[in-house]
Amino acid sequence: MSKNFTDLLSQVSKCDKKKLSVAVAQDKAVLEAVKAAKERDIADAILVGDEAKIIEIGESLGMNMADYTIINEPDNIAASLKAVKLVHDGEADMYMKGLIDTKNFLKSVLDKDCGLRTGKPLSHVAVFELPGFDRLLFLADVAFIPYPTLEDKANIINYAVDVAHACGVECPKVAPLAAVEVVNPKMPATVEAAELTRMNEEGEITGCIVDGPLSMDIALYKEAAEEKGALGRKVAGDADVLLFPDIHAGNLVYKAIVHMVDMQNGCILTGTKAPVILTSRSDTFETKVNSIALAAVVAENLKNK
Amino acid sequence: MSKNFTDLLSQVSKCDKKKLSVAVAQDKAVLEAVKAAKERDIADAILVGDEAKIIEIGESLGMNMADYTIINEPDNIAASLKAVKLVHDGEADMYMKGLIDTKNFLKSVLDKDCGLRTGKPLSHVAVFELPGFDRLLFLADVAFIPYPTLEDKANIINYAVDVAHACGVECPKVAPLAAVEVVNPKMPATVEAAELTRMNEEGEITGCIVDGPLSMDIALYKEAAEEKGALGRKVAGDADVLLFPDIHAGNLVYKAIVHMVDMQNGCILTGTKAPVILTSRSDTFETKVNSIALAAVVAENLKNK
Repeated sequence: MSKNFTDLLSQVSKCDKKKLSVAVAQDKAVLEAVKAAKERDIADAILVGDEAKIIEIGESLGMNMADYTIINEPDNIAASLKAVKLVHDGEADMYMKGLIDTKNFLKSVLDKDCGLRTGKPLSHVAVFELPGFDRLLFLADVAFIPYPTLEDKANIINYAVDVAHACGVECPKVAPLAAVEVVNPKMPATVEAAELTRMNEEGEITGCIVDGPLSMDIALYKEAAEEKGALGRKVAGDADVLLFPDIHAGNLVYKAIVHMVDMQNGCILTGTKAPVILTSRSDTFETKVNSIALAAVVAENLKNK
Repeated sequence: MSKNFTDLLSQVSKCDKKKLSVAVAQDKAVLEAVKAAKERDIADAILVGDEAKIIEIGESLGMNMADYTIINEPDNIAASLKAVKLVHDGEADMYMKGLIDTKNFLKSVLDKDCGLRTGKPLSHVAVFELPGFDRLLFLADVAFIPYPTLEDKANIINYAVDVAHACGVECPKVAPLAAVEVVNPKMPATVEAAELTRMNEEGEITGCIVDGPLSMDIALYKEAAEEKGALGRKVAGDADVLLFPDIHAGNLVYKAIVHMVDMQNGCILTGTKAPVILTSRSDTFETKVNSIALAAVVAENLKNK
C-alpha cells in the first residue's frame, strides 16, 4: 500500500514501464514533468505537437530528445486527436494535456472515434499527502461535476475507490462529507450521504466502506471522533476518500489545503477508459510528476482488471 | 487595525472594561477562559448557575472567586434566562454559553422578553489568524445558516463586516467564494456572488468592497490572482471576509484549516443585539479566550454606533 508519493514511486517501479502520450507537447512546464517522469522511471513519453518547438524546448531543458518519440503535428486540434488515439489504440497507456486549452483537450478525450469515453461522466480525483497522516487521502470531486446527483456521487465514489485500489489501498474508507455528522432532512447533502451509506451496505457500491454524513473532523481525526462520541462510526478518524457535497465545497477545501499546508499532491481525471492527466498551469512541478505516477499505477490497475 | 489576536488584545485594553454574563457557568473549560479573560483584562464576569459547583470548580482552577459576581440558579433554563437578561438590561455587555446544550442556550438568546433577538437571522463569524497573512480573516457563515438565500448572504456580509469594523478594519474586502471566479448560470453560487457585488456597487451593501465570485486562491493569494490574470479584480489576493456559498463549504473549509494549520481563531454569534459567545466543547482554550476578546471589541463598537 502506498502511504505517500515516495511509496507510490517505488510501486510504479515494480510495474511494466508505462507510456505517456502528450497532446501539444511544446510546453516547458509539461516537458519538465515528462523529463522527470523519464528520469525517475515512471514513464516513457510520446510527444505529439510542433516537433521543432518540442525539440527546442526539450533541449533547453537538457532533455536527450532521442529518448522520446516525437510525432510532428503543428495543428493543436489534430495533435490532440493523434495523441489521444495512441491511448485509444493501446500504443500508449495514459494521456496528458500540453499547450492546448482545456476545452479542446476534453473534446479529444471525449471524441467518439479515437477518444477515451466510457459513457459515464468525467470526474476528477485529487490525491493528498498531508503532514501527520499515515496514508494518502483521495478527494473527489473538487474540479469537474458542479452539483453531483446521487447517481453522480455513486460514480465519483467508484472512481475514487478505483484510484485508491490502484495505490494499494485494499478497502478504502469513504466519508461523504457535510457540515454535520447526522442526517438532517433540511440538508440534502446529509440525506444523500446516508443513502450512499445504505447503497454500500446493500452491495450497490462495492470495494470500500462508506459511512456518511461525516464532518471533516470526525472523518479525519480520531480525537475529534472520540470527543463527539463518534468512535462507533464505521469511518471515524480514518477516512481515505473524502466525498464532497458539491464542487464549491470540494474546490474551496482543495485550494485552502494546497495553499496553506506544506504538502504533496497529484490528480487524475476519471470516468475515462485510460488515465488522463489534466494538470493546471498553477500546479507545481512536483504535482505534475506525482500526477503522472498516479496515472501509471491506475493504468497498471486497469491492465490487471 | 488589529492584524492578529495579539493586536486585538491591546485593542481591548484601550476600551472600557466589559462585563461577560455566563449561562450555567459550572464548566471547567469555560471558567478557565473566564479566568484568563479576567487576568488579561479582557472582561469581568457574572457567573450564573449552580453557585456551589461554580465555586468548587473555580477554586480548583485557582480563581479568586471574590473577583466574580455569582448568581445562584441551579436550574439550567432559568440560569440561562437570568444570564441573558443581564445583557438585555445592559448590566453586562456580552453573553457566553456554559454547561447548557446549544438548543436551550439559543432559546435564551432568542427569548422574546429578555433575549437578544433583532428580528434578523442568527449567524456566525469565525476569525482566523493564519501564518503568512498580515491580517485577520473573517469567515462566514461556517456554522449557522445551512443554505443562505441571497438576502441571508447580504445579512451575513453585513454581520462579518461589522465584526471586521470592530477589529479596526475600515473597509474590509469581501470575497463571495465559489469554485470558479466567473459567473456560470449553471452555478447559482456564482450568480448570487455577482448579485452581491452589484448590491455593493449600488449602495445596498455598504462599509466594504464586495467582489465575487472568486475562487479561494484568487481571493487570498496575489500570485494566484496574477497567474490567472485576475489582478484587475477589486478583491485579488487581499480578501478580508470570505463568504461561503453554503454551510457545507464553509464548515468543511473551517474544520480543515483549524485542524491542519498551526493558527489562532475565535468566533462570535451575529444577528443579536449584543455579542454572543458560543464556543464548542472541541474549541481550544485559546479559541475561547480569543472569542471573548472578539466579543469585547464588538461590544465596544456597538456602544459607539
